[in-house]
Amino acid sequence: MKIEAVDLFYLAMPTIRNVGDGSQDALLVRVAAGPWVGWGECETSPLVSIANWVCPMSHSACRPVRDAVLGQSLETPADIARINQHVRDLGLDIAQTDHTLSGIDIALWDLLGKQRGEPVYRLLGDKQAYPKTPYASQLFGDDAGQTLAKARAMREEGYAAVKFGWGPFGRGSVAEDREHVAAAREGLGQEVGLMVDAGTVWGEDVAQAAARLAMLDAFDVTWLEEPFVSGALASYQALVQHGSRVRMAAGEGAHNFHMARHLIDHGGIGYVQIDTGRIGGITPARRVAEYADARGVTFVNHTFTTHLALSASLQPYAGMQAHTFCEYPVEASELARRLTRTAMTRDANGQLHVPDAPGLGIEPDLAVIKAYLVPVEIRVGGATLYRSSEP
Amino acid sequence: MKIEAVDLFYLAMPTIRNVGDGSQDALLVRVAAGPWVGWGECETSPLVSIANWVCPMSHSACRPVRDAVLGQSLETPADIARINQHVRDLGLDIAQTDHTLSGIDIALWDLLGKQRGEPVYRLLGDKQAYPKTPYASQLFGDDAGQTLAKARAMREEGYAAVKFGWGPFGRGSVAEDREHVAAAREGLGQEVGLMVDAGTVWGEDVAQAAARLAMLDAFDVTWLEEPFVSGALASYQALVQHGSRVRMAAGEGAHNFHMARHLIDHGGIGYVQIDTGRIGGITPARRVAEYADARGVTFVNHTFTTHLALSASLQPYAGMQAHTFCEYPVEASELARRLTRTAMTRDANGQLHVPDAPGLGIEPDLAVIKAYLVPVEIRVGGATLYRSSEP
Repeated sequence: MKIEAVDLFYLAMPTIRNVGDGSQDALLVRVAAGPWVGWGECETSPLVSIANWVCPMSHSACRPVRDAVLGQSLETPADIARINQHVRDLGLDIAQTDHTLSGIDIALWDLLGKQRGEPVYRLLGDKQAYPKTPYASQLFGDDAGQTLAKARAMREEGYAAVKFGWGPFGRGSVAEDREHVAAAREGLGQEVGLMVDAGTVWGEDVAQAAARLAMLDAFDVTWLEEPFVSGALASYQALVQHGSRVRMAAGEGAHNFHMARHLIDHGGIGYVQIDTGRIGGITPARRVAEYADARGVTFVNHTFTTHLALSASLQPYAGMQAHTFCEYPVEASELARRLTRTAMTRDANGQLHVPDAPGLGIEPDLAVIKAYLVPVEIRVGGATLYRSSEP
Repeated sequence: MKIEAVDLFYLAMPTIRNVGDGSQDALLVRVAAGPWVGWGECETSPLVSIANWVCPMSHSACRPVRDAVLGQSLETPADIARINQHVRDLGLDIAQTDHTLSGIDIALWDLLGKQRGEPVYRLLGDKQAYPKTPYASQLFGDDAGQTLAKARAMREEGYAAVKFGWGPFGRGSVAEDREHVAAAREGLGQEVGLMVDAGTVWGEDVAQAAARLAMLDAFDVTWLEEPFVSGALASYQALVQHGSRVRMAAGEGAHNFHMARHLIDHGGIGYVQIDTGRIGGITPARRVAEYADARGVTFVNHTFTTHLALSASLQPYAGMQAHTFCEYPVEASELARRLTRTAMTRDANGQLHVPDAPGLGIEPDLAVIKAYLVPVEIRVGGATLYRSSEP
């Protein structure tokens, strides 16, 4: 097969709110090769990645993603690895390349899985997929009362663990943060796991994070996620040295294998959280999963959007039984909830299973794509360089 | 002053060749505040950064760069630092943000310097600028004969050091690479310094790089630049362990302070090479210079394009006497050579001086901008989101 066509679909809710909800828009990728079609999703700014797909060449290491994808041969997983590397070589000097590549790599795995009649995790070499324990992932309430109500609702939904993040957390005093975490714990009770996501709010400021450790310990928080930006390895390491029981989690900001490895090698994290829509797809995510497993770090997906993205983010570690948690979006936008024709729901034991179906096993609904499509046209030097396709 | 207007100018040669010459296009930035205008340059894919400037918000940490810049107050260097951080906060989840920010940060320093009647290095806290020793930076020839001729020409031009990079180097056998390095050394004679830039050709493959170390030692090469991609810290560290005399140089791929710091802390490099057009501007470049200086690592600029970019890349370490080398582009395109009304030329001793003039001390020629301007129009959802300004 040759990769004959790639289409990018920029989808968005009619109104985008200035909150930390990454499901308000989406960049879907459709790849066609021979009689097959694969789907992927980039966790990116859609317009920036569309520009990255078509941008004119600046020099030999600053080329558009499409130059490295269209016309490539696709027969085996090794071809996907080759294309992944080729995109990075040609796009070395364009920072956006990794985000744009992500949805394409995912779509290639989906396509190859469909062609072979195998789930992606099997193509990755795993014989069996193990169920994951989903944690409900949501934003903190605007005040502690809202956080309490959200926690109670998730407990009633039967989740074994719940994560709260972003919103007001870390932006005010330790006492204010404590109110939110106390409310979360009160609403969840003692049996439900609780994680806290600081959303990089402290930048690289160790003191701000350290001031919250005792409080997080007191409420038996499993992990503190992204106290710092992804690159602040020394800050992560310094915080770990405080000897709190709460482990550090990070990795969603990793754009490639190396950035995730740095957090493991030099940041002292206990959980590495990888978004296949950002790290360059399933190919590097799998490499991180294997690296983490070998070093006693727990791999977890990062997913806050659609169930297409969710299936893609679970495939790299579906076959790794020891890595049990998975992030499960429970506050996704109407767009994200409606996008796929099937959803991944919990079984009677509250466990989540990757679809036992070829590829990702999740298909988008073309009518929904049409309903939320944001048309884009880019003209450069007087000529049309890009115009959105019809779904 | 308030930042009232920012214009981006995409300039390009009529033909872009598929070679490692990054001067074939440019993204110039003009910032206006009160009666003042500042200029900067991004080392980026121009179209991708233009899209990043205007892209619709996806969520609170995925916003266009302009949202964090327009209307901001600009009175002091601390304001520039605040704006720099604000851009990163709002653009956290857009990988391209750092590249786009770079030219804006540079233009802010230029503007503030002009308003205060001071060169940028003084605003950074340095009383005096020290002359730098420029090394001529150019690509390897297509064959060893061409490399020999290029080396001879640079020796005749009186350069104290010359760097060859990219082209065929590292893509064939060790013997072929040896021919090129031998030719370079023959053309330069024994007195002229020689550096080699592998342009990340070996990815993370230590063996490929290690196989060249003895040869590089034999021809007295000062540094081996970018044997690996920026993130391959373990590969850098492993190569350093081979104990060659040749030092490792890297850093041009750093998009922020942290990435450069990682190469110093965990990569064992001897030279850190920072492009102010990529790392987010003069603000983070200065921080790298101070960090490197405190750890015995030599700071060097990375510049392959215009003299506007050259002045910007020298300001962060102009006042640091111990860091003497500077990269000096000698193969820039006609566009890059013609763009500025003045050039930074060597003095009678072959030394280079940052301009003793307000801001960067280098002004672009509006007529040249007009001549090379590539108009861009971006339409999203049926409305025009961006259209190139007139210079």
